[in-house]
Amino acid sequence: MGWHGILGFEYGIVQAPLGPDISGPELVAAVANAGGLAFLRAPDWESPDYLRELIRKTRSLTDKPFGVGVVLAFPHEKNINVILEEKVAVLQVYWGDCSVELVTKAHRSGVKIVPQVGSLEEAKKAIDAGVDAIIVQGREAGGHVISQDALISLLPKVVDLVGDRNIIVIAAGGIVDARGYVAALALGAQGVCLGTRFLATEESHAHPTYKRKLVEYDRTEYTDIFGRARWPGAPHRVLKTPFFTDWKSLPVHETEANQPVIGRTTIHDREIEIRRLGGTVPNVTTTGDIESMVLYAGQSVGLIKEILPAAVVVKRLVEGAQLLIKQKFS
Amino acid sequence: MGWHGILGFEYGIVQAPLGPDISGPELVAAVANAGGLAFLRAPDWESPDYLRELIRKTRSLTDKPFGVGVVLAFPHEKNINVILEEKVAVLQVYWGDCSVELVTKAHRSGVKIVPQVGSLEEAKKAIDAGVDAIIVQGREAGGHVISQDALISLLPKVVDLVGDRNIIVIAAGGIVDARGYVAALALGAQGVCLGTRFLATEESHAHPTYKRKLVEYDRTEYTDIFGRARWPGAPHRVLKTPFFTDWKSLPVHETEANQPVIGRTTIHDREIEIRRLGGTVPNVTTTGDIESMVLYAGQSVGLIKEILPAAVVVKRLVEGAQLLIKQKFS
Repeated sequence: MGWHGILGFEYGIVQAPLGPDISGPELVAAVANAGGLAFLRAPDWESPDYLRELIRKTRSLTDKPFGVGVVLAFPHEKNINVILEEKVAVLQVYWGDCSVELVTKAHRSGVKIVPQVGSLEEAKKAIDAGVDAIIVQGREAGGHVISQDALISLLPKVVDLVGDRNIIVIAAGGIVDARGYVAALALGAQGVCLGTRFLATEESHAHPTYKRKLVEYDRTEYTDIFGRARWPGAPHRVLKTPFFTDWKSLPVHETEANQPVIGRTTIHDREIEIRRLGGTVPNVTTTGDIESMVLYAGQSVGLIKEILPAAVVVKRLVEGAQLLIKQKFS
Repeated sequence: MGWHGILGFEYGIVQAPLGPDISGPELVAAVANAGGLAFLRAPDWESPDYLRELIRKTRSLTDKPFGVGVVLAFPHEKNINVILEEKVAVLQVYWGDCSVELVTKAHRSGVKIVPQVGSLEEAKKAIDAGVDAIIVQGREAGGHVISQDALISLLPKVVDLVGDRNIIVIAAGGIVDARGYVAALALGAQGVCLGTRFLATEESHAHPTYKRKLVEYDRTEYTDIFGRARWPGAPHRVLKTPFFTDWKSLPVHETEANQPVIGRTTIHDREIEIRRLGGTVPNVTTTGDIESMVLYAGQSVGLIKEILPAAVVVKRLVEGAQLLIKQKFS
């Protein structure tokens, strides 16, 4: 198989923006250096100077291009301005309207723009807005999940919708290894976006206990019990830990707002108290009761057996896909 | 790509037992004649003589081998005895325990046995019981859905669990065309099992209005509102019709038992009244308010654009997969 890459990157392998503050400069640089498209995650509040520092720190670790992901549900205008001023290669946006205005603004700055979508309607809007690529997220994905459809169902429909337009389709959700990569290519994608697999790397900013749980646990559940007060209406997929199992039936009117503080953390440039049932994922700076915090993960987490260097993840995907194609389809 | 077939069949293409009374002799014979593994669906009550007739009628339409599917949640012992006496090629079982005793009994009769499972635990039991193949059903499947995991997540885990044992792994759920077929092969399956796609064929016993809706509608939902009185705890995936949307929030204590009769039908050898919210799918004999009946469908129904002869479905899967592999992976 010849590798064509996507959007100017060597391979069609994308490291999802993991947030907040999990995919930092070290992870992004490692994936970029290995030939993948990697995303920093912008803060979920306006913090242009800090974001500029993040981008520049990443540039000090790699001379390869990379991107930044922005959750449109939170304040983001100043952050986006910095991303465009710094002319990173790709702006990824999620959970909000990828408008014609935003696409035009990105393109004027020479920045490619790639929304992650979870429905055919969102994909239609993205196509009409003139985006460069679309990440199609299936319901099996980890973290915040906008999709209701499994990848095997939604992806081919978006591919058909794109037709012969020059828009790259990237598959996200449940992809962990070369099997998922080749399956996504068969379904019509030109690239794959992996979250949980890159979360479970040496370079991710996830707390060591969180990383260990990704290897230990193999079940997840789609829920809305975490972070309701700050981000209502935002379902997510998490590890089925004992804590989650105890709290999964939290009545809809209860939120983290009236729960005790169970830890502290620094997220991007802010020191934050973590309340029980808060949506704040434990990063490397977090202290407190880590096992009772939200531990986002995709449904295929059971296929992750070890924490690896990010470059090894990329290498295994590429070489594994080549081998699988040779053995199965030649 | 060389086609190896599975379980002695020409291709790795399986027509799911569609029930009750949707995959009858005509559909099964058409798929068998085209080289696929096709399943009759046994009645959901003991009806050995009628089932024997069904098998013999199918044999009058094809000299190729075929199978019978049995839902273990309903009375089935006499039916299974007939299936084994008639020595059909494959016994498929679902929604219940595929015990060592049952496997041994099938093998003594020279009948292969293939459970459909929806979890790693069920797969483990099936492997230990010595089955010939395992159908792995993802949550995107139509009809009654035992799985909580998407196919892309569950399938590779079952493949890893099977390892180098001589057990065929077949993928079910969300597969409609060659893209899904090749994706399933990439994920490690040796065959694919399609329900909705074969439901939408000329030969299926589905009511013409139901078939038309499969082409018209492209959304489904996972629910438990239909057929609760007769088969509680059995979630299913249905077309998101206006009727479904009106009734989807049916309180858990309400069932079809106290609803009005909205139609009549003959299922296998029985004349039956269909109550509103009953679990009885409209077959070709059904009269009444078809659009308010349960219309099972898988999540990829949006990829179905026309009613086709079953042989054309098989042919397109095979030729489409060959072309896709050649274009994408050679």
